[in-house]
Order: sequence, then structure tokens, then C-alpha cells
Amino acid sequence: MLVGVPKEIKTHEYRVGLIPGSVRELVAHGHRAIVETGAGAGIGFDDDAYRKAGAIVMATAAEVFAAAELIVKVKEPQPGEIALLRPGQVLFTYLHLAADKQQTAGLMRAGTIGIAYETVTDARGGLPLLAPMSEVAGRMSIQVGAQYLQQGNGGRGVLLGGVPGVTPAKVVVIGAGVAGTNAIEMAHGLRADVTAIDRSIRRLRQLDAQFHGAVRTLFSTADAIERAVADADLVIGAVLLPGAAAPTVVTAAMIKRRRPGSVVVDIAID
Amino acid sequence: MLVGVPKEIKTHEYRVGLIPGSVRELVAHGHRAIVETGAGAGIGFDDDAYRKAGAIVMATAAEVFAAAELIVKVKEPQPGEIALLRPGQVLFTYLHLAADKQQTAGLMRAGTIGIAYETVTDARGGLPLLAPMSEVAGRMSIQVGAQYLQQGNGGRGVLLGGVPGVTPAKVVVIGAGVAGTNAIEMAHGLRADVTAIDRSIRRLRQLDAQFHGAVRTLFSTADAIERAVADADLVIGAVLLPGAAAPTVVTAAMIKRRRPGSVVVDIAID
Amino acid sequence: MLVGVPKEIKTHEYRVGLIPGSVRELVAHGHRAIVETGAGAGIGFDDDAYRKAGAIVMATAAEVFAAAELIVKVKEPQPGEIALLRPGQVLFTYLHLAADKQQTAGLMRAGTIGIAYETVTDARGGLPLLAPMSEVAGRMSIQVGAQYLQQGNGGRGVLLGGVPGVTPAKVVVIGAGVAGTNAIEMAHGLRADVTAIDRSIRRLRQLDAQFHGAVRTLFSTADAIERAVADADLVIGAVLLPGAAAPTVVTAAMIKRRRPGSVVVDIAID
Amino acid sequence: MLVGVPKEIKTHEYRVGLIPGSVRELVAHGHRAIVETGAGAGIGFDDDAYRKAGAIVMATAAEVFAAAELIVKVKEPQPGEIALLRPGQVLFTYLHLAADKQQTAGLMRAGTIGIAYETVTDARGGLPLLAPMSEVAGRMSIQVGAQYLQQGNGGRGVLLGGVPGVTPAKVVVIGAGVAGTNAIEMAHGLRADVTAIDRSIRRLRQLDAQFHGAVRTLFSTADAIERAVADADLVIGAVLLPGAAAPTVVTAAMIKRRRPGSVVVDIAID
Amino acid sequence: MLVGVPKEIKTHEYRVGLIPGSVRELVAHGHRAIVETGAGAGIGFDDDAYRKAGAIVMATAAEVFAAAELIVKVKEPQPGEIALLRPGQVLFTYLHLAADKQQTAGLMRAGTIGIAYETVTDARGGLPLLAPMSEVAGRMSIQVGAQYLQQGNGGRGVLLGGVPGVTPAKVVVIGAGVAGTNAIEMAHGLRADVTAIDRSIRRLRQLDAQFHGAVRTLFSTADAIERAVADADLVIGAVLLPGAAAPTVVTAAMIKRRRPGSVVVDIAID
Amino acid sequence: MLVGVPKEIKTHEYRVGLIPGSVRELVAHGHRAIVETGAGAGIGFDDDAYRKAGAIVMATAAEVFAAAELIVKVKEPQPGEIALLRPGQVLFTYLHLAADKQQTAGLMRAGTIGIAYETVTDARGGLPLLAPMSEVAGRMSIQVGAQYLQQGNGGRGVLLGGVPGVTPAKVVVIGAGVAGTNAIEMAHGLRADVTAIDRSIRRLRQLDAQFHGAVRTLFSTADAIERAVADADLVIGAVLLPGAAAPTVVTAAMIKRRRPGSVVVDIAID
Repeated sequence: MLVGVPKEIKTHEYRVGLIPGSVRELVAHGHRAIVETGAGAGIGFDDDAYRKAGAIVMATAAEVFAAAELIVKVKEPQPGEIALLRPGQVLFTYLHLAADKQQTAGLMRAGTIGIAYETVTDARGGLPLLAPMSEVAGRMSIQVGAQYLQQGNGGRGVLLGGVPGVTPAKVVVIGAGVAGTNAIEMAHGLRADVTAIDRSIRRLRQLDAQFHGAVRTLFSTADAIERAVADADLVIGAVLLPGAAAPTVVTAAMIKRRRPGSVVVDIAID
Repeated sequence: MLVGVPKEIKTHEYRVGLIPGSVRELVAHGHRAIVETGAGAGIGFDDDAYRKAGAIVMATAAEVFAAAELIVKVKEPQPGEIALLRPGQVLFTYLHLAADKQQTAGLMRAGTIGIAYETVTDARGGLPLLAPMSEVAGRMSIQVGAQYLQQGNGGRGVLLGGVPGVTPAKVVVIGAGVAGTNAIEMAHGLRADVTAIDRSIRRLRQLDAQFHGAVRTLFSTADAIERAVADADLVIGAVLLPGAAAPTVVTAAMIKRRRPGSVVVDIAID
Repeated sequence: MLVGVPKEIKTHEYRVGLIPGSVRELVAHGHRAIVETGAGAGIGFDDDAYRKAGAIVMATAAEVFAAAELIVKVKEPQPGEIALLRPGQVLFTYLHLAADKQQTAGLMRAGTIGIAYETVTDARGGLPLLAPMSEVAGRMSIQVGAQYLQQGNGGRGVLLGGVPGVTPAKVVVIGAGVAGTNAIEMAHGLRADVTAIDRSIRRLRQLDAQFHGAVRTLFSTADAIERAVADADLVIGAVLLPGAAAPTVVTAAMIKRRRPGSVVVDIAID
Repeated sequence: MLVGVPKEIKTHEYRVGLIPGSVRELVAHGHRAIVETGAGAGIGFDDDAYRKAGAIVMATAAEVFAAAELIVKVKEPQPGEIALLRPGQVLFTYLHLAADKQQTAGLMRAGTIGIAYETVTDARGGLPLLAPMSEVAGRMSIQVGAQYLQQGNGGRGVLLGGVPGVTPAKVVVIGAGVAGTNAIEMAHGLRADVTAIDRSIRRLRQLDAQFHGAVRTLFSTADAIERAVADADLVIGAVLLPGAAAPTVVTAAMIKRRRPGSVVVDIAID
Repeated sequence: MLVGVPKEIKTHEYRVGLIPGSVRELVAHGHRAIVETGAGAGIGFDDDAYRKAGAIVMATAAEVFAAAELIVKVKEPQPGEIALLRPGQVLFTYLHLAADKQQTAGLMRAGTIGIAYETVTDARGGLPLLAPMSEVAGRMSIQVGAQYLQQGNGGRGVLLGGVPGVTPAKVVVIGAGVAGTNAIEMAHGLRADVTAIDRSIRRLRQLDAQFHGAVRTLFSTADAIERAVADADLVIGAVLLPGAAAPTVVTAAMIKRRRPGSVVVDIAID
Repeated sequence: MLVGVPKEIKTHEYRVGLIPGSVRELVAHGHRAIVETGAGAGIGFDDDAYRKAGAIVMATAAEVFAAAELIVKVKEPQPGEIALLRPGQVLFTYLHLAADKQQTAGLMRAGTIGIAYETVTDARGGLPLLAPMSEVAGRMSIQVGAQYLQQGNGGRGVLLGGVPGVTPAKVVVIGAGVAGTNAIEMAHGLRADVTAIDRSIRRLRQLDAQFHGAVRTLFSTADAIERAVADADLVIGAVLLPGAAAPTVVTAAMIKRRRPGSVVVDIAID
């Protein structure tokens, strides 16, 4: 199959659909790859790295879109990209169509076969292409939360792990799926006082075993969430509804009652 | 030196001054040992074990006291034992004289050289002979506290480590010396929510490093203790004043304000 | 559905079928709840807590039984309660019918639809309503065993974790299911010398990974159990036969050969 | 002694010399405390909290300075504050005189007895009043470094701990004193690939034991530092020269050779 | 069933088909066992141990083969043993037929029902009879690799875990199945710098959780393996193709480029 | 000072007195270094590495000995080297004179100022130049012991860590100083059943804290050692008498009573 990798054009998107290592794997399995010049520049791969891996580097996105049977991207296609799609061509990228009527209409007009990363499921019902992003998002949520808890940023001036002799911050993670678990791991690693809330008692048991009891686990009820949020310094919302934007699990009512200066990070993944 | 080991006669005292292994060490270093028959029975050593280690077993305490240059015991001498002591003889045991006028007078009359375990210090100022008892007491304090927290025993019906999905009990250990540290280790091992309070920030730092932040540390102020006790399920008092009975660090005022059904264990060592 | 929660009346039963937080969840999902006055008193919830969660509080069990479509309890119905049941009504509680002919006959006469907690299975064949009790029982078994090992209670006078310089107690846990695993976690947390025996090598592998080798694992054969029990200070029997009382895995023959002063705790769950 | 606590007036300084809990301790030991109104507002303590602890709240800094025998502050006195000092009065705060000729001259003119937090040493030669700030600085250095490694902030776009399947960032901490050790703990907690460099092999041994080998330790030589810095994503400079501002241990020459997009955080404490 | 256990005769094979404990289990379940004299001598079980477990000990292999309905062995039958097999008899042992034409022909001629340990699968598709050997092989691979890294054995003279102040060795484990995971556990236990490479991102996630990030995980691509091998001190090949000898995952090309003095251990199991 | 580094000439000695990184440090502090050609070849440093670090490379040992004021070596001087020494010259290396009359006489005739690594003490009474060798020896002792426990090498055929379902080997480490502690760390890392024996109860306490109880600690008495050795698979002798060869702590009597196939490694350091 002829696989094409255009350069991402959405603002603040530094990623690329395929790194040279992935191109090498494709080529080794009998496929061909074409890559737009500069596609990997945002994460440190120049055109020669792609060439060495076996790709042909092309000068424009238009050429890549015109030739490729399969387009591998990161973000949903922008209007200029949708115009380059053609019937029967496969587009493999994040789409998040539920909240984007214009893109949906564009793709239907183009006749492209769109496969959204966020909806691909594996044999166990997992979301293998969403999971790595959930991992990154979960780990970053703690880093970002820590930053906003600084007094200069309007937070309570609380250090996540405290210091010896001083109480650590209370971090509440709602949802212990991939994103939530990664948030828990980082908050626990920073020595915060972490509480994990989930609807699956089985998942809570696994967390109890993994952390040898050092992360508190709470079965998810409205009562439990309300009380935990009211007492927290940092709340991470990590509940995923497959195929949709992440919901705001921390309701407006709860947010009203939280501690002054506390921080809420609600994870949404694309 | 001729070392004598009488059988302990105080109620509920199962220990013995020297086990056969210690007798063997003494004999190997050129000393002689005499042991009252049955001295080690409470902890599973019969007379033959002592004989095999090189001791002479005698039929009565009177014979042991009469012959020995050094008496090695566990508990303070009881009136009947004081009567057997003689001038110049060395008595090596727990004495706890501060609170025991009668015994003090008895020893003075006897002219014995008493060396109290609880006052022997090492080059670093530590109490090497008290420390093992502090370790046992610290570890048992949690076991005993757990038992009294059971509802059938009048406690709050809280399991120290909770179970997944249910909050663990809050254990506050006041004083992180030998006894306190051992209590902390056991409470943490049972997955309780442990807070250690001490006046030495250096000690709190060591605990933070040892437990990788999983035990909360608080610098000891009246405020800190008051608040921690008010919120605790189990309070362990582990503050030692050398040479005296352990003080009641949890004041009456604090105890009044603690949670109904919570348990206080104040460690006193002999 | 109209859900009724009577006060438990069996001796030493402090639990209650639903806590206020659970009532709130039911009400939020469109159900109604009626609760007998004082139902939650044993674990610290007064009638107002239930009212605030949306329940109606009734003065007598008779009223609750008469009105409710679904009765949620903890213990099997006592004779007085069986008399209040009616055909078509659903009773959700522990039943343990296998060993209780009288109750079985009573329920059949009443025409109630009984759903026993201990027989509900999930999609993986697990017992989700028994598991939390197994967790509690497994964790308590170590606490109780530690208590009976004290010399004053007739035990060997061995501290589970020993102290530095002194060997810890040997704990053997037979059966590494939910109860057994929780017993292992607590015994390991108290620094005992723990051996886990199970018929599933896969489970033993998980334990080896979870504890990084610090818990010894033995494949279950008669030889292995016999030898381990003969050398143990504390034996926890944690083998479950679904729907029945826990069997006595440690046979009479084994018990005869165990160490004097050692303790056996056989976990039975309801 | 009459202790006075003025409100801090230097920009971005939210801390206060004494919290109410400390005031309570002073008063309990027979001292008196006067506090400027609003002194604790920056960290959430109102005047009533101080009054409850036993302090008298005064309306202006001038009143506090005029009455107090001992002034307890956080930052070095600003020109307006120096003007309020008087001969014989004790000033207890961070001074950092080495780099501040104007302040030094002001204090000499005022005739105040200045005791600088950063120079107080304990019996072991440690700096007990600097250590807590070093702990905070060390822990925050990783948080700040993580933030600047984000691509949006000009960094390499590397997550400190990576994610499963992707290599974590390399963090090099130069100097394993209080600040460095706290940085190491946080970086290790975030699952980064951490290398600690120190001139004390004894300290490296302690780190190896504390982290069970999971933090790499390197003896400090120019070679070792150069190579480690050249390969690092995040370099923490944590070398302290007592009584002076922290030196720049990572020399200009090294910085030139470090990886593009890598981040250097040099800890300076006051 | 009548189960026969002949003594292994292949060179350097010390194992035996059934230990006395297994014989006891068989007998307890109604089977009978016959064992060749000296069968367990290589691992410390004499004939009496088998007799005590309920077996009949026979003087020659010929007698065992003649009588038994089921032969339980360790290694593939040697020519002399094949001659003793008969039609309808079941042979349960490692066979590894794929690479052994002569044995295959022999078994076909004999008309024996051969069940090869290495091909028995469980309900989850695992290889329960191969797994214990994989565990042993994985654990030993590190021990053997450490030995060959010694300078006297021609290696780089690198200690797997280094010492404080000196960098540890880099160990790369390719394949994180049973053998690979056990190799990882040992290398990590020796404080080496371990990288695990696998094609299953799910498995890498489990390793990240199990080791709290202290083992680096890499998704398996040709690029990733090549780079890791080029930089490694010790490479463990632990990729299993079911039913066949383990493949050489580290290709000749890679081996050419590895560090002088580095060691490669490729695990093959029987 | 002019520092000279000759090539080591004793059989199987691959080390060198100074590595290039150390030369660079000396030169940076104003000293000069001369190195014999090929001195670092055994551990991978060529002459150019030394030149780049600032050393002058000389063709023969004779030139180095003739010019240098301070000779830095690894092993005690061999007869040919002693002949090159001169009065007033400083020789810094391992000497181990106690057991080597010939060398002692040679050094006295030469009039050299010999400073033996193994006798240099630091302010705490430690042996800073012996410690790194003790670390290496302690870590290797386990690796070597594991190797000799293999059946092919005459051992019991026991894997140190066992595998899940099979008991691990028992490792007894006598002496928990630097060498012993490093042996303990490795044996524990390999999941063996480790017992540490030491005469310092303080050291045992530190081990208990460091390993969270997972390493058994025993106070050193003849009884304790005898019993532990009788039951061990691997015994590590790690008792150091400063300035002398390591003693054989495991007496002949004990060795007679140990298990067949068990292995004893007695650490001697130079």
C-alpha cells in the first residue's frame, strides 16, 4: 500500500503521523511511504531520516494527498486538507466527529474512508490508539496542576508533596482508566496524598495491590466525589466516554464548594 | 565472673535474663554461669539447653543469689529477691526506681550495685538495652490498637487498612523514636493512613526518605497534635523521657475532643 | 422500585443493608427508599442522614417489610423477619442456605424471591458481593492471629514481624484467592515470614511479581501443606468453596503435628 | 521576650515570619507576640487566628518595630523597614548580606543585632533554617523544569517519565545535599531517568541504598559532569556554598554543549 | 492409571519426571506409580522417598516401560528408550520434534501417543508446562550473562549493578514473555540499567506499573532493537515461537555492531 | 606534585592507578601526571585518552618510576618494581604487608614512603579506599556463589531466587559491613531468602528499615551462626579485620555440618 504522511498544519501541533522508525517497519513489510518535506521537523526528524528509513520525500501536501492510498495524520483534516481528499482514499487520524458538523459534512462530500483513532478497539474492548494519548494526558495533568497550584499562578501555594514536617497536597483523581491511572502514578510519585475514585471495585483492588495501599481508593458515589472534591487541593477529571469529548465529571455544583485556590484539571484527549 | 540467672517471679513475666545462646557466649569468653532450674521454661528453653551451653543449673533462687557475683534478671527485684541480695553484688536488670520508693530503699539497704537497663547509654547517647523493648512495644501497640478498634471491643469498627474502596483508619504516632518508628512501620505495613509527629525535623526527614513519602510527617506543636488527635482513629503515644515512665503526651484535654470510638495506646516500657 | 432497609436484629451484627450514600444513588436513579428507624445507628448514621439522602424513615420493621418491593439486608432473615416476607417480594442478603434447613423451608413457604449475596457472580465468574467480606476477613485474620500468638493468650509469645536481630514468625496462608491475598498483604506488611500456597501456579506468579519475591510461594500439594504447617507459627486457612461454608483445609492430622503454641485461623465468610 | 512579626512588604513574598501555631508555642513558653494586621493573609491566616493563639494584633509595622525586642521576618529588611530598626533590637530573618552592600550598611547604622537564617548552624554543622527552603526549592525545581521542557515553552517536548514504550527524560542533578536530594526524589517519583552527581561517595552510597539502585550515582569529576550534561534533558544545579548565593556549577562551556531544547535549573535559595 | 517414571539417561540431565510429592498426589487420586531405582538421585530423592509416597520402585527402565500405561519423563526419549515404547502407551515429556527427524520417525514406528510438554496449552492460550522452564531459563540467563561479563571470561569487566559512583551495566531484554520477564526481574534486582523491548504495548504497560517506572520499556521496532543492542553490555534474547526452538532475534547484523566485550544470551528452552 | 602511573604487571590485574578523568582532576589542581604507555588498556583507555586529560605518556615503567614524586598503583609492588623505588618517593597502592615479609623488607630497603590504601581512614573511622573494593567484592560474591550452586558446577542445583511455586535458596551473610551489605543487596535483588548476621544491633536495625523487613536479621552469636550455616545454601563470609586479610568466620567445624552441595564464599579484599 502507498502510505502518505503530510505535515500537520493545525496551530500548536508538533506531532507527525509516522516517525522514521515506523516508516522503516512499513517498508520492511512491503509497503511504500511518501512524506511531505518538513513533516517531522517539529519533533526533531529531518527529511534525510525519512529517506534513510525508505520514504520518498515530496515537496507539497498536495502531492502527498494526490498519490497516497492511505493518509496517516495526527489531527482532524483542516478545510484545506479536506479539499485534497478523494473517494476511496483512506484517512487514518483523530477525527472527533461528534462535535464537528462541518468536518463531518466535508468528509462525506469527499467520499473518503475515515478511520478515527479514537474509535479503534482491540480484542479486549480497549482503545489502543487512544491509550498512549491518555497516558501522556494523565501524566501531564499532574504537572499542569502542580503549576497552577503555585501562588504566583493564583493557586493555594501548596507543593504537591509538601516537605517533611508539612502536610502534602490532597489530589483526587476521578476515573482510574488509562489517563487516571497515569495521573495517579505521577501524583503518588510526587508524594501527594492521592485518592482514586472509580466505579469499578475491581480496578480499585488492582490499584490497592499496585501501590501497596499507599493510594487511597474510593468507590464512586455522588457522596464520595462531593466530599473528596470539597477537601482537595487538586482534582483531576479523568472519565472517558468513548468516541466523545471527555465529560465534565466535576459538576458545577461541586466546583462551587471546592476550596479557594484549589485547581481542577479535566482531561480531554485528542 | 560468675553470672547468675534466677527464674523471674513477677506475675505475667515469661522472659529470662539470659538465653542459652547468651550463656554460651559468656562461657566462651571465660565466664561461668549458674541458672535456676526452670528459668527459661516460659520461652521454651529447658534446663538441658542451659547445661549444653555450659551453665550449671541450680535448684533454687537462693543458691543462685548466694553464689553469683553478677545477677542478670528482667524485672526489678521483688521483695523476696531483695532479701537475697548482698553488698558488692552486681544486679543487672530493669529497675525503674523513679516511681518505686520501696524498692529503692531495699536496694540501698542491701548494698547491691544496681545497673538499670533503662539507663545504660551508648557512645551516641542511645539506650541500647531499652531499644529492643521499645521495638517490641512499638510493634505491639499497633496490634493492640487494631484489636480495640473492633466494634465488639467498643471501638469504631474500623479496620486499620480499610479495604479497596473504603478509607483506611487514621493512625497518629506522637514521637518517632525507637518505639514510635516501630509503631509507624507496622501501621504503614497494615496500610493505615499514618501521620508521624516529632520535634526533630531531622527525624521527620529520615522518615520521609524511608517511606518515600507514604507516611505523613508533622512537626510537633500543640496545634499539630491537637488537630491530628481530633481526627484520628488510633493515637499512639510514644514519647520517652529517659529513666522515667513514659509520659502521657496526649493530654486529658485532647482526649476529651477525640472521635467517639477512637483508641489511644500510650507506650510505657519495662 | 421501592427498596426497604430494615434494622439488622441478629446479635453482634452492626452493619446495615444500605448506607445513606447508597440510598442517594438509588434515589438519583429513580427509585424510592424506606428505612427503619435506627437502621444505621450501629455504624454511625442517624435517621437524618438517610432522610437527607432521600429516604423515608419508618418506625418499625413491619412497615418496611410490608411496603418494600425489594428488601436489602445483611444477615439471613431471622424467624421474625421471615414471617414478614410475602410472595413476589425480593430479598437481597446473605442467605447461606446450604447449612440452614429451617431458613430454607421458611423462605419457600413465604414465596419470596431470595437472591443470596454469596452466589451472585460477575461476567468473569467472580463473586463481587462476597469479595469485600473476603477482604475484610482476610485482613482481620492476621490481626486476630497476631493477638492469639501473644503469650498471655496461650500462644507462643511470638511477634509476627519479630524485631531486628530476632527471627519473625512464620505465617502460612493456604489459598491465595481474595481472602488469602488480603491475609498475605497484612502479614507481609507486619514483616512476617510469609508463605503462600495455592493450586494455581498462575496466581503464585502474580504474587511473586506483586511482592517482588518477598513472599514465598508454594504449589499446593499435600506434602507442601504438611511441611509448611508443621513449621508455621500462624496458619491461615483461606480456601473457598463457592456457595458453602469455607472448608477446613488444614486437616486434623496436620493440626496434630503443628508446633505447640502455634495458631490456626480458618476463614469462614458471611 | 516580646516578639514582633511585621507583614512582609517585598514583591511576591506571601510568607510570614511566624504562623499562629508558632505564636502559640512562644506564648506557652512565656513570651509575648505582637503581629501586624494582615501579616498572615498571604497564606490564609487572618488576624483572629493570631489573636486566638495569644498574639496582640497591631495596626502598623511602625508599632510592631517600635515595641518588639525581637523581630521575626522572612525577607531581608527593605529600606523603609531598616529605618524602623533600633540599636539592641534583634532581627531574625534571611539577610544574604554578601551580595547586598546597601543593606549591610543600613543594618550597621541601625545598630541592630542581625541573625541571618542562612548562617545558623546546628550541632552537626547543618543549616537547619535553610534546609526547609532547600527542600521546597529542590522539589519545585523538577516541577519548573518539567514545565519548561514542554514544547509550547520552547523545550524539547519531552515528558519527564515518558510513557510505556517511550524512553523517559534524562535528569541530571549536580549536588546531592538537601536541595539536590529533594530534586532527585521528585524526578524519580515522576519516573525520569535520574543521575545524581556528588563529591561525597558516602552520600552516593546512601542514595543507592535509599532508591535500591534505581537512581544512577556518579562521582563528581569534570569529565563526569560534562558527559552527563551533554546527554541530559534537564539539569538541576544544586550545589550550595554556605552563606552565599548558590554558584553556577554548570559552567558556560558545558551549557554550550548541551542538547538543544534541554533545560537547566540552577537552585538559589532565599 | 499406571504411571511409570524411568531414570533420565541423557547427559547432564539431573531432573526426573515426577518427584515423590507428585507421586503422592497421583496415588491419592487413585492412580498407581512405578519408578526406576535411582530416578530421583540427581536432585536428592532416594528410592525410599518414592516408596513412602506410594510408588513401587523397579530395578530397570525396561520393567518400567513394560508395565506403565503412561510414561512421565523430562527429556525426549533416547534411541534405547524409543525401543522400549509400545503402541497405545502414552509418553508425556519434552519432545521438540520439529528439529529432530530421527526421533519423530522412531515415535511413529513405536505407535506411542506422544504428548509434548512444550505444546500443551491452557484455556488462555498459555503454555503451562513450558512456563516453569522459561522462568528458570530467564532467571539463569542473567546469572550466566553476569559471569561472562567478567574480564577473566573475556567480557567487558562490567558488574551488572555497578557500585555507587560508577554506572551500572546496560541490559537489554528482547521479548517480555515469561522468560524475558524473569530475566528483567533478576537484572533489575541486581540494579542493572534494564531496557525491556516487546511488541505488545499492553505488556510494556504492565511492566511500567510493576516496576514503578524503574525498568525502561521500548516498543519493538527494528530501529529500537538496533539502537538498544549497539549500546548494551548484556543482551538477552527471549522471543518464543511456540513449538519450535527459540529464534535468534538478535540478527547477525546487529551482533556485528555491538560493543566489544558485550555478551549475548539467547534463551532456548527444553 | 609529579604523579606517576605505571602499568600493572601482576597476573590478572586489569585495573590502573588513575583513569584519565582522575588525571584531568589532578592537572586542573596544578599537579602533573606521567603515565606508562598502555597503562589503561586493560579497562579500555588508550594513551590518547590520557594525553587529552593532560598526562605525558612514557615508554617504560623505569622512566615513570624515575621521574615521579608520587607513584599511584593498584597492586602491591612486584620485585621488579621495588627495585625501581627510591628514598623519599611516595608509593600509594594496596600493600597488605601483614602477610608479606619479603615485600615489607623490600620497601624498607628502598626507603619509600608507602601509604597502603587498605589502612587509610576517614574522619568517621571508615576505610574510604577499601570500601569501593568491598562493594565490588560483596556484589560479586553473590554472582560467584550463584554460579557454584549450579549442578554442573557441583552445587545443589538451586536457583538463588527459586521460581514461583518453588522455594528460593537460603543465603546467609555473616558481617553486614560494606562488603556484606552489598552481598545482601544483590542476594535480595535476586529474590533469595536472605539472613544477615552482625554483632551491631544498630546495623541490623538499619537493614530492617532499608529492606522493610524483607531481609531477616540475626544478632551474631555462635549459636545463631551455627544454626544459620547448617541450613544455608550459600554462606557469604564478610567480616573484615582492618589492615589484615579477611578472617575465615565460618569455622571448619561449621563447614563440616553444612548441607551437601551448599557453597561458601569468603570475601578477601585487595
